[in-house]
Amino acid sequence: MLNQTEKPVILAEQVQTSITNLEPLTRKVFLSLTPPSPLDNRADVDQVRQGLERLYGSVIVPLALMSRIPVICRKADWQVTATLADTDQGWKLIELEPNDTTKEHLGLAIDIGTTTVVVYLVDLFDGTVLGHAADYNDQTTLGEDILSRILHAAQPGGLVRLQKAVLDTLNRLIRRLYPLPMKTSKITAAAIGANTTMIHLLLGLDPASICRAPYTPIVNNPGLIPAGEIGLDIHSLAPVYCLPSIGSYLGGDVIGGILVSGMHQQPDISLFVDIGTNGEIVMGNEEWLVACAGAAGPALEGGVTTYGMRAEPGAVDHVSIDPETGQVQYSTVGNIPARGICGSGLVDTLSELFLNGLIDRTARFQNGVEVFVVVPGIESASGEDIVVSQVDINNFMATKGAVNAATDLLMENVGCDWQEMKHFYAAGAFGQYLPIESAITIGLYPDLPRSAIVRLGNSSGEAARQVLLSRLKRVEAEAIAAKVTYFELNANSTFMEKFSGSKFLPHTDLDRYPSVKRRLETRI
Amino acid sequence: MLNQTEKPVILAEQVQTSITNLEPLTRKVFLSLTPPSPLDNRADVDQVRQGLERLYGSVIVPLALMSRIPVICRKADWQVTATLADTDQGWKLIELEPNDTTKEHLGLAIDIGTTTVVVYLVDLFDGTVLGHAADYNDQTTLGEDILSRILHAAQPGGLVRLQKAVLDTLNRLIRRLYPLPMKTSKITAAAIGANTTMIHLLLGLDPASICRAPYTPIVNNPGLIPAGEIGLDIHSLAPVYCLPSIGSYLGGDVIGGILVSGMHQQPDISLFVDIGTNGEIVMGNEEWLVACAGAAGPALEGGVTTYGMRAEPGAVDHVSIDPETGQVQYSTVGNIPARGICGSGLVDTLSELFLNGLIDRTARFQNGVEVFVVVPGIESASGEDIVVSQVDINNFMATKGAVNAATDLLMENVGCDWQEMKHFYAAGAFGQYLPIESAITIGLYPDLPRSAIVRLGNSSGEAARQVLLSRLKRVEAEAIAAKVTYFELNANSTFMEKFSGSKFLPHTDLDRYPSVKRRLETRI
Repeated sequence: MLNQTEKPVILAEQVQTSITNLEPLTRKVFLSLTPPSPLDNRADVDQVRQGLERLYGSVIVPLALMSRIPVICRKADWQVTATLADTDQGWKLIELEPNDTTKEHLGLAIDIGTTTVVVYLVDLFDGTVLGHAADYNDQTTLGEDILSRILHAAQPGGLVRLQKAVLDTLNRLIRRLYPLPMKTSKITAAAIGANTTMIHLLLGLDPASICRAPYTPIVNNPGLIPAGEIGLDIHSLAPVYCLPSIGSYLGGDVIGGILVSGMHQQPDISLFVDIGTNGEIVMGNEEWLVACAGAAGPALEGGVTTYGMRAEPGAVDHVSIDPETGQVQYSTVGNIPARGICGSGLVDTLSELFLNGLIDRTARFQNGVEVFVVVPGIESASGEDIVVSQVDINNFMATKGAVNAATDLLMENVGCDWQEMKHFYAAGAFGQYLPIESAITIGLYPDLPRSAIVRLGNSSGEAARQVLLSRLKRVEAEAIAAKVTYFELNANSTFMEKFSGSKFLPHTDLDRYPSVKRRLETRI
Repeated sequence: MLNQTEKPVILAEQVQTSITNLEPLTRKVFLSLTPPSPLDNRADVDQVRQGLERLYGSVIVPLALMSRIPVICRKADWQVTATLADTDQGWKLIELEPNDTTKEHLGLAIDIGTTTVVVYLVDLFDGTVLGHAADYNDQTTLGEDILSRILHAAQPGGLVRLQKAVLDTLNRLIRRLYPLPMKTSKITAAAIGANTTMIHLLLGLDPASICRAPYTPIVNNPGLIPAGEIGLDIHSLAPVYCLPSIGSYLGGDVIGGILVSGMHQQPDISLFVDIGTNGEIVMGNEEWLVACAGAAGPALEGGVTTYGMRAEPGAVDHVSIDPETGQVQYSTVGNIPARGICGSGLVDTLSELFLNGLIDRTARFQNGVEVFVVVPGIESASGEDIVVSQVDINNFMATKGAVNAATDLLMENVGCDWQEMKHFYAAGAFGQYLPIESAITIGLYPDLPRSAIVRLGNSSGEAARQVLLSRLKRVEAEAIAAKVTYFELNANSTFMEKFSGSKFLPHTDLDRYPSVKRRLETRI
């Protein structure tokens, strides 16, 4: 069981939009019907349908429900509650229950990350989150990153195994949120934010073409799919909505991030960055949106350094170095002896090493030093020193350099300047747990006024909650998907030049980091 | 295998409307797509959907098809044909084939009678009937008439047996029309005309409430159901449309009859009569429609007389008596030795007995005669005399009397008169094989100008063909269903009075049968 992950499971309060006009994917409608009589001997199914059509227009009644309708109506003395599912074209009756159960109305907002999966149980009657559960994606045992999953899918039986793995993960989390003997069929809708490959694997679609020119997925916008066709353990006719993706490398998780940020509705230009197993950068405003993406590597997920680990108990999560004594102060998750360093601890360490002159602007140790001891062996769980090495730093700098290079390239291409960048949205782990000042110091975040820096938390999960609850938000998400221009980095030779020139702390152009520059000047 | 049945399998030419604006339940659309390229790297499914949505608005793509789309498109060099199914709310992609197959477009028009089932293979590209096949409904072995089927359905496993029986019948007929190795999945739509009980049994819905006050079916208008959910052996996503019924005793077969007659669009008042295992009478015009129904018994299906049989080889189908010599002339189906008498033979026999004064206006044999020998033993297949007895005649008179009484009652209730009745539509066996003059002579048909008498043939099957091919006809059928006022005969004490007073030849009121009156006067 997962106690804490690098991936934020909490939806950032500051962006959790209160949906005022609830229009969830399913609706519950109480019907007070009249028993058939010689004066009104309409057929049972027709009476139910007509009652619903007065409110909702055309309603489809599936054959599987027809035989149950007379039984339920008679049992409940014709006081029944219908559940209607959006079909993209109208409404479909998916459940009929005795009595008024309109307030018992549940849905799921799901974030499927390459590494971590989070499921939120949402009250569709009032829009609140009733609970959440998170776990590693079982697919990780079949391949760490997206490319290895795509390769695994090409093996005999691989696609089926990968689909089963993510379904097992999801169904386990659903059961954790909704323990026996409660029926998971009471959950009648779900919305999912995930990258394009995760959606393909969930739906059992071959992801091979995603990593093969011209990089066309099988589907970007799957529409509403009944849960039973996917294998999700909720009501078999529950509509499942996947946030639309834009292409192979820009998924519904990013569209969700833009949706949650609101950058697509502002006159000012914003920058959105999400760095997880993959990294995505979006720039734009109410008039235009450009985006790029690439594999980011596990730099911020604890997988890149020798002592890297996830933000689990024993992970060093905060580090400072006394400028006078050079003494290291640190804290660990759970306040137990240190076992390794997680992303936020690494960012703090690098920032402190830089501010204290232990590494230079090219991120190299000075004076022949090879490693920096963060936790001496005497204090660590294993008895070994926990260190950060030059190799660890170089790996991290590759990720940071790629983010900087990609951002610069996007700006150049749209012809905009750092001065015009009014908001910075940080999503995912990158936007939740990193220490802001340290992230700025080493150039991972831009050096903007602190009020312009917004951390979105799990924006993919929050976007799933919003589209689960609001038809308008679904329309908005699809409008965003239609509006974003994707910028292919790998096809661009300028990117590699910029990338090579970006491995400086905090940035090649120090003037872009005025607050860091001031601190460095103070230090000197 | 059925050679000939009382139920007409041929759609009467005179009413087979040429559908000029073909809008079948499924559409085939040829798409010439472009292979994905760096300049257009839309997802495969999205490209197909967008191509269709330009022509048809919102199109749903089921998950089961998504994985096949990239394979088919590449195999066919992006020249593909989509099959779209009407969902009542929009369109759903149900099939994608390589190349242009728009002209290979098949559907079924189905008439499920209590006794006989007829399936027509219809070309949805041009509306023509490519072939038909008919057989007894396998359900007859589980119960002869509707009531016995409903009782059988209440037994353990009875409903499942009945559903399987009719599906076996249908799937056998489909295979007969479309022999191996052709794939029945090429048939992508079906429309069905049948009475309410037949529809319930086909859909696996309990028909118990149909014969229990207040006589409410489970459903009158089931909407479009995927064939796979029913178990019909055509494309599993093929939409199946059942002509809507009005109530327990007035089914889609009757709505279909009205639709085919066109009586609902005429300023003149018409009378529509269908007598099969059940009998239904409809009266009205473009402004109003009233109807009544009841069990008719097998009087016209050969099951009521001692030597009654279906119109199979050896059935006496035409009879005349020489007024001079009293000698009987007859013909048999297939011109083989007589085995029994079918409906048309019985109607002829009664007419001749009446015209020759061998039975009187109360349909009783004169001069102490008990039986009338139609075929002497020396000529019959068995060597026995084939006769019509007083009991046989009385049974027949009960059916005829009920039809007369019901017609009179309907007329009285709407305050209309025989003079106003401008068209008479005879449907089913009643409207195809009966000898017109004999049927008028014994009062089964009204004595209208012969040009006002229209025989509709299998109007239930023809209506199924029309709604299969035309969206407007579906709308029209539903408008008819909404417009008909059902008149409950059994709850009406006047009916029993009229019924008792109706057992005269040709009718209690001889003035209503002027041509018969003239013939009788000539005779005397």
